[in-house]
Amino acid sequence: MPENAIRIGLLGYGTVGSAVDRLLRDEVESIGRVVGQPVEVAAALVRNPAGRSAPDGLLTTDFERLRDDPSITVVAEVMGGIDPTRRYVLELLEAGKSVVSANKQLLSRHGEELFGAAERCGVQLRFEASVCAAIPVVKVLRESMIVTNVHRIDGIVNGTTNFILTRMIRNGSPYADALAEAQQLGYAEADPTEDVTGADAAAKIAILASIAFHTRIRLEEVDHVGIDRLDLADVTHAAELGYAVKLIASAWHADGGVAARVHPCLLGADHPLAAVEGAFNAVMLQGRSIREVILEGPGAGGEETATAVIGDLLAVIGTQGTGFLQHDVHYRNIPRFPAGRLQSPCYLRFTVDDTPGVLAQVAQALADNGVSVAQVVQHAGEEGVHIVILTHRAAEGDVHAAASGVAAKPFSRAAPVVLPVLERRA
Amino acid sequence: MPENAIRIGLLGYGTVGSAVDRLLRDEVESIGRVVGQPVEVAAALVRNPAGRSAPDGLLTTDFERLRDDPSITVVAEVMGGIDPTRRYVLELLEAGKSVVSANKQLLSRHGEELFGAAERCGVQLRFEASVCAAIPVVKVLRESMIVTNVHRIDGIVNGTTNFILTRMIRNGSPYADALAEAQQLGYAEADPTEDVTGADAAAKIAILASIAFHTRIRLEEVDHVGIDRLDLADVTHAAELGYAVKLIASAWHADGGVAARVHPCLLGADHPLAAVEGAFNAVMLQGRSIREVILEGPGAGGEETATAVIGDLLAVIGTQGTGFLQHDVHYRNIPRFPAGRLQSPCYLRFTVDDTPGVLAQVAQALADNGVSVAQVVQHAGEEGVHIVILTHRAAEGDVHAAASGVAAKPFSRAAPVVLPVLERRA
Repeated sequence: MPENAIRIGLLGYGTVGSAVDRLLRDEVESIGRVVGQPVEVAAALVRNPAGRSAPDGLLTTDFERLRDDPSITVVAEVMGGIDPTRRYVLELLEAGKSVVSANKQLLSRHGEELFGAAERCGVQLRFEASVCAAIPVVKVLRESMIVTNVHRIDGIVNGTTNFILTRMIRNGSPYADALAEAQQLGYAEADPTEDVTGADAAAKIAILASIAFHTRIRLEEVDHVGIDRLDLADVTHAAELGYAVKLIASAWHADGGVAARVHPCLLGADHPLAAVEGAFNAVMLQGRSIREVILEGPGAGGEETATAVIGDLLAVIGTQGTGFLQHDVHYRNIPRFPAGRLQSPCYLRFTVDDTPGVLAQVAQALADNGVSVAQVVQHAGEEGVHIVILTHRAAEGDVHAAASGVAAKPFSRAAPVVLPVLERRA
Repeated sequence: MPENAIRIGLLGYGTVGSAVDRLLRDEVESIGRVVGQPVEVAAALVRNPAGRSAPDGLLTTDFERLRDDPSITVVAEVMGGIDPTRRYVLELLEAGKSVVSANKQLLSRHGEELFGAAERCGVQLRFEASVCAAIPVVKVLRESMIVTNVHRIDGIVNGTTNFILTRMIRNGSPYADALAEAQQLGYAEADPTEDVTGADAAAKIAILASIAFHTRIRLEEVDHVGIDRLDLADVTHAAELGYAVKLIASAWHADGGVAARVHPCLLGADHPLAAVEGAFNAVMLQGRSIREVILEGPGAGGEETATAVIGDLLAVIGTQGTGFLQHDVHYRNIPRFPAGRLQSPCYLRFTVDDTPGVLAQVAQALADNGVSVAQVVQHAGEEGVHIVILTHRAAEGDVHAAASGVAAKPFSRAAPVVLPVLERRA
């Protein structure tokens, strides 16, 4: 153990934690070259060390020992969960240690408290691994785009749902079958709720929007619609019109307000995110001076996440004591604007009786709400006729109002489907 | 002018330099938040200040004044060229100032000397803006991928040629027409040699490969074939087979050796770089722990480049005195391996007499060199028949040997065309 080594602590020694430890040991030479000193894991907190494979003396069940060890100046939180994780992280920050976290739930729910504590204590809280694993979107937003004023983020930030959607598009599998396949292949958990409802994506876009717009966007503020109610018919109709359906997490800063949401969207073939397939993630940043920058890669995985954690650990070490990046998160109040004000072309699908005059009434309902129609296709279905409409750009609130108007008509057989079209430039 | 401001110098005040100055002033608040102190341009070196619009007292023609000002600790080199730029940068490093450079020619030709000087003098030399403008590929390679061992880089790193190729693919324009259009729209210079021959891309991949593999790859070592001799017929034949032709800059670290080159390649529709159109750039990094990460965005432009320069300036300030990133560039010797040893499927086009038995002889020449054929298509052309062949994966040296064998036959009417197919995983 070299005398001048930088000693780090780990909270957790599961898939990610043990990968962090292993990679740090495997790459000790490259790391020493970059940092100027060796870096080693000094202690790893676990609830129960029995049966875990780890170097002798590394594992501990004693949080206080880790917290009170003055030789440990930076800690990676890779244990997950909210409780007791939140308390541990707060106590570490207050003990003067910088913390690197891979925990999107913790940061999107308790970011204000944690970043406040880090700032007050003059230490860093980094969180690259909390969003999209090895894709360095947090670092790029915080360090490369400082003068850019990113005003829009659109991302495929959940690999499970992108895998399921890819199967629906490519193989024509209904949602339930595609989900079962994803579970079988390990891309979806036994309880997939967090992923398929869009809640996971909502936590990630809350974190990204907070960094990009320098304000605090809470998880609870992010409207999210997942893919768990998505009908294969809409994926198929969209494909016939030349669009792929993707679960998109978006955030905007426009007209002095901000908004964030997660929603299934239609993407034209020319949209850079349309080609992102399987369990991959990608994030598109738009801003002054950069036009658009896209980052793509695997959004999950133990080694991938560990890579991001280590990047953050080394960045903390490389900037310690300089004041860099200690005051840039969550600092100003910006009003929210309601999703209904967003302007998009929209995909609409009405399931209606197969009787003359229905299309005219649908068209009238759209016209009454100021929504202009770009394209109409009718499909004979088992439960009635599907009228599929692509609108021109319109306020989404007006599109929903028109859809509700149609839903109230006696010829309507099912709730209308409304999916926004993600334009390349907004 | 706040007392505690960090004062930076500029070498050059053209499109990029003036954009750096303007963005730093526009975003003084965001920058102060990130850095913890205000940042301002203290002096900008120009050859002739007449007719330039700049704040009073900013421009100077006196390099020594800038070099010897102890209050200036970091300088951005945005003047371009090799001479006197190289000397200026060396003198600044030796005067204890960190330098940020946007100059790919300087770095790819004189990197060893400059990085050596920076290391010796204990200062930083950063160079994000030298490759792909606002796409933060240098930062990601140096800071996020430290433990990743990136073993392969493939990039579309020249917007001019990608614009021209996109026009050839989309509109069926011959090379000369597409070039003329690019020149008219400002995407190509009056003398496009540097871009269309692949020399510009070669300088960029030399820089990226040097960082990724921690060795020094000189510009002269990078074999480059451009698009200036690319025949529209091959772009069209490739499209019929489902491939897009792109100018790809590649670097490999495999079997203990490294190689880098620039070559037009065929990309299948499922390759992430196939969808990169127009003047955009994209770089795909493959490595242990990350699988593949792709970064995409505009690869040129004054504000885009200025954004990258500022990211570097602030990173220097944020890591000053910590030793971070001062020893990671160009540090080890790795043998080179010859391009002929590379294994790829290949596209071959032979222009031959329209007589029976020719295809059999072509097939025999391939078989004699151990090259296996995946697909053959014949096209009647004006100057003979085009025999288009896609091979299975083969050593490129063997494919070239087979092509030379065919070229020597009496039925051969033109030099054969050999283009590698870029596979997604290599």
